[in-house]
Amino acid sequence: MKAIGIILAAGNSKRMRELTAKRATAAMPMCGTYRAIDYVLTNMAYSHVQSVAVLTQYNSRTLSEHLNSSRWWDFGRKQGGLFVYHPTITPDNSSWYRGTLDSMCQNIHFLKNSHEPYVIIASGDGIYRLDYNKVLDYHIEKRADITLVTADMQPWEDSTRFGQVKTDENGRVLDFEEKPMREESREVNTGVYVIRRRLLIEILENCMEEDRYDLVRDVIIRYRHVKRIFAYHLDTYWSSISSAESYYRTNLDFLRKEVRDVFYHGDETVLTKPNDFPPAKYNYGCSVKNSLVASGTIINGTVENSLIFKKSYIGNGTVIKNSVILNDVYIADHSYIENCIVESHNTLYANSNYVGEPDKVRIVVENNDRYIL
Amino acid sequence: MKAIGIILAAGNSKRMRELTAKRATAAMPMCGTYRAIDYVLTNMAYSHVQSVAVLTQYNSRTLSEHLNSSRWWDFGRKQGGLFVYHPTITPDNSSWYRGTLDSMCQNIHFLKNSHEPYVIIASGDGIYRLDYNKVLDYHIEKRADITLVTADMQPWEDSTRFGQVKTDENGRVLDFEEKPMREESREVNTGVYVIRRRLLIEILENCMEEDRYDLVRDVIIRYRHVKRIFAYHLDTYWSSISSAESYYRTNLDFLRKEVRDVFYHGDETVLTKPNDFPPAKYNYGCSVKNSLVASGTIINGTVENSLIFKKSYIGNGTVIKNSVILNDVYIADHSYIENCIVESHNTLYANSNYVGEPDKVRIVVENNDRYIL
Amino acid sequence: MKAIGIILAAGNSKRMRELTAKRATAAMPMCGTYRAIDYVLTNMAYSHVQSVAVLTQYNSRTLSEHLNSSRWWDFGRKQGGLFVYHPTITPDNSSWYRGTLDSMCQNIHFLKNSHEPYVIIASGDGIYRLDYNKVLDYHIEKRADITLVTADMQPWEDSTRFGQVKTDENGRVLDFEEKPMREESREVNTGVYVIRRRLLIEILENCMEEDRYDLVRDVIIRYRHVKRIFAYHLDTYWSSISSAESYYRTNLDFLRKEVRDVFYHGDETVLTKPNDFPPAKYNYGCSVKNSLVASGTIINGTVENSLIFKKSYIGNGTVIKNSVILNDVYIADHSYIENCIVESHNTLYANSNYVGEPDKVRIVVENNDRYIL
Amino acid sequence: MKAIGIILAAGNSKRMRELTAKRATAAMPMCGTYRAIDYVLTNMAYSHVQSVAVLTQYNSRTLSEHLNSSRWWDFGRKQGGLFVYHPTITPDNSSWYRGTLDSMCQNIHFLKNSHEPYVIIASGDGIYRLDYNKVLDYHIEKRADITLVTADMQPWEDSTRFGQVKTDENGRVLDFEEKPMREESREVNTGVYVIRRRLLIEILENCMEEDRYDLVRDVIIRYRHVKRIFAYHLDTYWSSISSAESYYRTNLDFLRKEVRDVFYHGDETVLTKPNDFPPAKYNYGCSVKNSLVASGTIINGTVENSLIFKKSYIGNGTVIKNSVILNDVYIADHSYIENCIVESHNTLYANSNYVGEPDKVRIVVENNDRYIL
Repeated sequence: MKAIGIILAAGNSKRMRELTAKRATAAMPMCGTYRAIDYVLTNMAYSHVQSVAVLTQYNSRTLSEHLNSSRWWDFGRKQGGLFVYHPTITPDNSSWYRGTLDSMCQNIHFLKNSHEPYVIIASGDGIYRLDYNKVLDYHIEKRADITLVTADMQPWEDSTRFGQVKTDENGRVLDFEEKPMREESREVNTGVYVIRRRLLIEILENCMEEDRYDLVRDVIIRYRHVKRIFAYHLDTYWSSISSAESYYRTNLDFLRKEVRDVFYHGDETVLTKPNDFPPAKYNYGCSVKNSLVASGTIINGTVENSLIFKKSYIGNGTVIKNSVILNDVYIADHSYIENCIVESHNTLYANSNYVGEPDKVRIVVENNDRYIL
Repeated sequence: MKAIGIILAAGNSKRMRELTAKRATAAMPMCGTYRAIDYVLTNMAYSHVQSVAVLTQYNSRTLSEHLNSSRWWDFGRKQGGLFVYHPTITPDNSSWYRGTLDSMCQNIHFLKNSHEPYVIIASGDGIYRLDYNKVLDYHIEKRADITLVTADMQPWEDSTRFGQVKTDENGRVLDFEEKPMREESREVNTGVYVIRRRLLIEILENCMEEDRYDLVRDVIIRYRHVKRIFAYHLDTYWSSISSAESYYRTNLDFLRKEVRDVFYHGDETVLTKPNDFPPAKYNYGCSVKNSLVASGTIINGTVENSLIFKKSYIGNGTVIKNSVILNDVYIADHSYIENCIVESHNTLYANSNYVGEPDKVRIVVENNDRYIL
Repeated sequence: MKAIGIILAAGNSKRMRELTAKRATAAMPMCGTYRAIDYVLTNMAYSHVQSVAVLTQYNSRTLSEHLNSSRWWDFGRKQGGLFVYHPTITPDNSSWYRGTLDSMCQNIHFLKNSHEPYVIIASGDGIYRLDYNKVLDYHIEKRADITLVTADMQPWEDSTRFGQVKTDENGRVLDFEEKPMREESREVNTGVYVIRRRLLIEILENCMEEDRYDLVRDVIIRYRHVKRIFAYHLDTYWSSISSAESYYRTNLDFLRKEVRDVFYHGDETVLTKPNDFPPAKYNYGCSVKNSLVASGTIINGTVENSLIFKKSYIGNGTVIKNSVILNDVYIADHSYIENCIVESHNTLYANSNYVGEPDKVRIVVENNDRYIL
Repeated sequence: MKAIGIILAAGNSKRMRELTAKRATAAMPMCGTYRAIDYVLTNMAYSHVQSVAVLTQYNSRTLSEHLNSSRWWDFGRKQGGLFVYHPTITPDNSSWYRGTLDSMCQNIHFLKNSHEPYVIIASGDGIYRLDYNKVLDYHIEKRADITLVTADMQPWEDSTRFGQVKTDENGRVLDFEEKPMREESREVNTGVYVIRRRLLIEILENCMEEDRYDLVRDVIIRYRHVKRIFAYHLDTYWSSISSAESYYRTNLDFLRKEVRDVFYHGDETVLTKPNDFPPAKYNYGCSVKNSLVASGTIINGTVENSLIFKKSYIGNGTVIKNSVILNDVYIADHSYIENCIVESHNTLYANSNYVGEPDKVRIVVENNDRYIL
């Protein structure tokens, strides 16, 4: 592959509420078995990108531990593979990253020491499947300076929190509006870019001199008339984990066969750091409908339209509906959970009752002591 | 740890019937997610044995592929770790292994190049959890020449196919009868031995000169009066995969909490080569009772008292009872399966009917073309 | 890459004399730091072949241990990567490999389970640098059934022990003579082939029915008029380790800058299983001229036109000329070694004198006890 | 092993001068082939510490890249192994590490999530060989609260820059003086500590409340009368890389057999991230005396009492004396280098002349363009 990859995973969104109190968005558990960043890493691996840098800063510990061996994503190479870069104090600089652009500026050595002619920049919280080679081919064919990938938002998503793109019939970007006041289109910027490596270095060096720190505002929007920026449209499933609601809805989307089919075919699946948990155990009296249940789980009660992540326990007579139960949750008998996200490692006592609303998911975080199992 | 490990996985048992037509017993899929050899490898890893040799010969391809990276069992070391030895032609020898003892003789270099004072020998088809350090401590305390591990057979097992051991009150072996005509005791030899490395080398060199090839007959039985042989009793679950029936019963045993509790506590589980399959999907209309269901599976029908291995598909209206469905099996709608083992990668057409007997499990092997999923 | 790789490393050559008494040719230490098979594995890795099978049989232990982690050649993948296949007993077969073709027949599952359209077959003892993509492009452009790679022999090599190829002006093979009575040309078959995977499976299945076992005789020569066989000429350094003399001469060739330049440029080197030995130590009184000295070595004496492999010790007043000293050799003081290969792990006592002839290298194998260092 | 490890590698020393402009002290290349942190990691690995955290902050990029695969130090485990922790912004904290103690406080989760009863704390810049189990045994035998390791400084070192320890005849620390005005003793604190994990957590939590940040001042000195602090004396080679001079002298110390013998015996060496460079090449006319020469190097000139690191080139007629030439340095013909450290990746033109003094080493940093080799 003629490109290296950069994954932007340093930021935080307040709209994730309590969910990012203990890890970065890119480290959010997803779909029973994965973490959010696995999706973009899988895209990088299946596109045969040989060298990928993950830039991280906010609440990075869980993410670092998840990424501490590059082999899980087939990046295990003697030289290179997967690099995780954190803020560091150098003789020249002692600032934290001040924005997406600054995080790349502070790690410009990664770009300078590479040999590949192109760079793929992607954010760490996008859930989609894309062969970046197709975008690169498009980029070259259009003789673009920058190619950005657009996609249609999910029906439940609010487009005014994304960047909207207006293109001519050739795909060239005419205008770009970040978080517009009103929705013009369902097609938004996914935060995936292709750019020549030398051009990116040049842009970064200019921006460093001018104290510019934000990739979208200071590059995409600012250069939109002076550079040839093109849009490549991704026409399969795309979602971005940017709020508790979008996190919840994206997980539930995986109950739909047509969404799962985007990510799994035959031996091709989503790459992740795996575990050795035993298969899920279903006891007498349990009932599971339209749900995903990960390994290591024990189910006694009723589960409907929900995702049960790894190593959870659902008690007798307990009912889980339209909910996302993260890893290692213990829910005792005769509880009722609906429209909730239950944070990982929680213990809910017997006869608990937690109900959210379809449009306003409830996040359950209890610090109860775990029963001795 | 002061011992190296040798795992004997070269042989075949006719009583496994069709099941070993495509892989060695040690490579049999177990309990939804694992292979039989994972249990002994897990014991070795958790006992902190640093260096382990697996001796293989019969139908070894699947086993070799399973073991082609030592990292899955935490044996990934720069020098050493996990070695898989196959028969090879040398200037001195061009025979296949002629028995368990011969397989060790042909790989005597592994013993000679090691520095640890003891050797743990174990077979590749035992399903149990044991800290070998306890056996080693016992061995040293008893000043034994050889310590063998005994265990009580499962109630459904026929002891006349195992070696029976008579000991004095100190644990010293007085007599040993291999596959006796009638059952004297439920306590049998598990095929796990501890011995000093130098003594084993000496015994192997003697046996090579005398063309002796079988570990039990030519060492344990033959030396039982001249060497101090002691028995260490393992008092938790133990089973040996030596026939289709014992394979079937051992898998079903994992539906019992007290058996699972032997193997899983907290983060301690059975180590294996993992995969990235998504969580199992339960569609409307499915019903699952007292069963284990591995990841990657899709369930529409009814599953009772059964194990469904990875990536299987159970159609609408299909009923699975008291059965073991191996990896990547497709069972179409309105089928009925009871008391069966369904071989991996099989496709069963709609309205199939396969019924075995509780004491005579039916092995289902069909070479149907897979429906395009 | 659109091809999988098969490396043939099962055979033995008597002309290697004592050198293959303890390992296969493909496992011969090479050029101070490597083993012979590293060169073909490096070619596979740098050509981005994702999946490689090594077929081994003769004296395979050292080779197996060298290959026991695929990561050293960047083949470390979750599924696939590097597979080492040994003879195994199956319900259908209990023969050792009876030839190169038979070794592929017995592992035909590797071909059948792959998806890539092409196969690169290469022997494990060739020393050269080649991007197999170039051969594949040529193969496709010529619409060939089989493409074989030819090269010019080294000046010191005897061509009558290789296969000679006569082609038309297009590169199509008109005739092929294995080990001809007299040299027709310096251009010989290197044992590297490209072929469509389906065609290879078809040929193997035919050959299995007809009990044909040899790739060159039963495929290349037999099919030379009925299939479109083309020759791709490799015009850089190529040598094949097929005799003690060619092994010796190939090693000495690496003292020449133009040979080293074929294999090393910048960070691109030969991939191998590395070690952590300290840098070589040069004591007062040593003199080293036109030689290669590997790490872990201690030099007190004089070394000229020679290769000193890892962890060796050269005593005071000792002179080494035109020789190849393998790993972990201890040569005590005041010895004289000329035109020799000293086998690994040897100890030569003080005042030893070993002299071979330039055209008839002397192989030194002593079983002396090592001085306590 | 009953302890986890923490390696403190976050700080910087001005006395390293230009050497730490491009990497942290712990990442300094050492002894031809290694980096400084390899020594403490080797001690951890050979002591069978299973879980190690490296805390880093200053100029951490090179260090992160060096550590990006735990397998090189045999820490490659499915769960755990080697963790590298960087400063991160969390909901509770957005400070850089404010001292050694603070770096542990900010990563207190690592201590809390572990199960081992003890912690070994060591700095990342010590060059020594120590089995931490011996210190732990001593710690338990003395019923100490904290055990610190002391050693005798090298003769060339100035003790007033280290902590001096006064003990009673039992080894209990009576007093402790950090960087005293005048030398009382050659025995100093090496910065290696053993402490119970729960006690360390308790101390850290107290210190967090009181805004205390420095391990020596705020724990060792402050608690010296209220806790049982004992000193374990390391009686083999120890040095700490804390100034350009000590870096230079420590490297030259490795030219002495008695120093090398501390670190290398048989297969036991210093573990590091290895490379595949070819053996060093010695051309006609070169002369090497009492020097260490790493692989990948080409030598034409004269080298005396020096260390030549990996991939360097020494031109014709060039003389290197009492110097340390780091990785990938090109020194053209007829140059003269004495008492210097030449920074890595430097190019020195022909006829260069760089001379330092024995007590004031010269650091050579040139930004010349490299000749096309």
